[in-house]
Amino acid sequence: MDLLMDRDALAAFLQRDFAEVAADFTVDRAEMDGVDLRLHVGAGHLRPGGTVSGPSIFALADVALYLAILSRIGPVALAVTTNASVDFMRKPSAGSDLIGKARLLKLGKTLAVGDVLVFSDGVTDPVARAGLTYAIPPRRLDGT
Amino acid sequence: MDLLMDRDALAAFLQRDFAEVAADFTVDRAEMDGVDLRLHVGAGHLRPGGTVSGPSIFALADVALYLAILSRIGPVALAVTTNASVDFMRKPSAGSDLIGKARLLKLGKTLAVGDVLVFSDGVTDPVARAGLTYAIPPRRLDGT
Amino acid sequence: MDLLMDRDALAAFLQRDFAEVAADFTVDRAEMDGVDLRLHVGAGHLRPGGTVSGPSIFALADVALYLAILSRIGPVALAVTTNASVDFMRKPSAGSDLIGKARLLKLGKTLAVGDVLVFSDGVTDPVARAGLTYAIPPRRLDGT
Amino acid sequence: MDLLMDRDALAAFLQRDFAEVAADFTVDRAEMDGVDLRLHVGAGHLRPGGTVSGPSIFALADVALYLAILSRIGPVALAVTTNASVDFMRKPSAGSDLIGKARLLKLGKTLAVGDVLVFSDGVTDPVARAGLTYAIPPRRLDGT
Repeated sequence: MDLLMDRDALAAFLQRDFAEVAADFTVDRAEMDGVDLRLHVGAGHLRPGGTVSGPSIFALADVALYLAILSRIGPVALAVTTNASVDFMRKPSAGSDLIGKARLLKLGKTLAVGDVLVFSDGVTDPVARAGLTYAIPPRRLDGT
Repeated sequence: MDLLMDRDALAAFLQRDFAEVAADFTVDRAEMDGVDLRLHVGAGHLRPGGTVSGPSIFALADVALYLAILSRIGPVALAVTTNASVDFMRKPSAGSDLIGKARLLKLGKTLAVGDVLVFSDGVTDPVARAGLTYAIPPRRLDGT
Repeated sequence: MDLLMDRDALAAFLQRDFAEVAADFTVDRAEMDGVDLRLHVGAGHLRPGGTVSGPSIFALADVALYLAILSRIGPVALAVTTNASVDFMRKPSAGSDLIGKARLLKLGKTLAVGDVLVFSDGVTDPVARAGLTYAIPPRRLDGT
Repeated sequence: MDLLMDRDALAAFLQRDFAEVAADFTVDRAEMDGVDLRLHVGAGHLRPGGTVSGPSIFALADVALYLAILSRIGPVALAVTTNASVDFMRKPSAGSDLIGKARLLKLGKTLAVGDVLVFSDGVTDPVARAGLTYAIPPRRLDGT
């Protein structure tokens, strides 16, 4: 099986369909074993004390795995997050980007499941871990 | 046991310590059995199709339970979210505020646990359900 | 909407389809707002120190919500647990039964979601909290 | 950093402190990057249809990560599971053992966090994924 959307295709998808947040993210890598997504940490992602907010980490994990699904099924389907379980383990490094490394563990007809490790750029120990499930709507017979 | 922070005290805390997001929220209710927090849904919370984004729902649940903890232990401690598990169940109503109803299930010396049901304002069936755990740092002997 | 299976029907279902574990459980209550299931704690459920094992608490939550789903859709469908997130909050009382109070939050065509609070019999503070999701297989046209 | 308990030490610990369930498990591997634990699937682990029960999969994940923690901190501490989030992704193969591959992602002073992938023996795609958190009690000064 090959990727249906590579790094450039995923980046173009973000620009077109997620214009509000596309500037926050860069697709660093998209391969069969997963997608690495970079969050460009800016003032809007910070909480008091200079740490990256929980919702920003959640968003990074959610978008990273969403792109990993699209890389395999293409942009035709609109997957919806049904469950996310996140462990926040360490304070992110101040002033660093965050990298979400997503891997797809199951790609079924109706459900996709995967997990994401989130790192401060250049740091070995992960900041957070997330497991996410997406409902995949039925494909239409005309392929749209 | 009484509340250490009531609705007005929680609102003042939000204004002072979470100035970046305070305008998004109103504390609708703060009682011993829990806190109701309103998210004023604006353009920045929306995703394509007009639905409220997952990170916005996550943020509502996280802040609502955080305030429920503070209402019981006061503003002295800096609780940190360690785990959040969210079930996204229904699409929020377009153009409605979201209400997070948080209840505290355990307030221990080092961990606090609770859950939150998120509703579109005026709608009976919940949009999302979240369970969250917070680590509570040790109290200092001088009470600061 | 009425219950399709009441307390007696659920108990009979357990006896017939879950014969291996049926003796462990009693359906204390089955109403539109949820199902209360009792785990008769025996030696096989205990861990060193006399506490009830995590898998036993997990099983109680899983069966309780499963029965809450069946009470609404009947015994025709074979729902499968797809996600469970459990917070273990307090040590159960030694020598007490556990009660799982399950409520169904969403009953969709393909997914059902609910949560369960687990109590030591007669104790106010909950032992554990669980959120669970089940995949519901498509109904066959002949109703079987 | 070295392992404080290797495969043999973990197996001896299981025999002594978890005598009720020790016969169900074999420690296949214990290294710095994690612990592989085998569940010898027997009649007591099965559900109708011959599939391995959810509580058995939960128990495998829970014990596997527990042993991974002990391999690093030794048998002195009594860690307690505080949160477990499990995604059940595929039906286990009938008649196969299950292998839980646990990795420790954080080993803090009060909390340890890790995840586990569960496989049917010899099958590439995972049966389940779990993220677990344990509270680690304070070490006593006398080292006991």
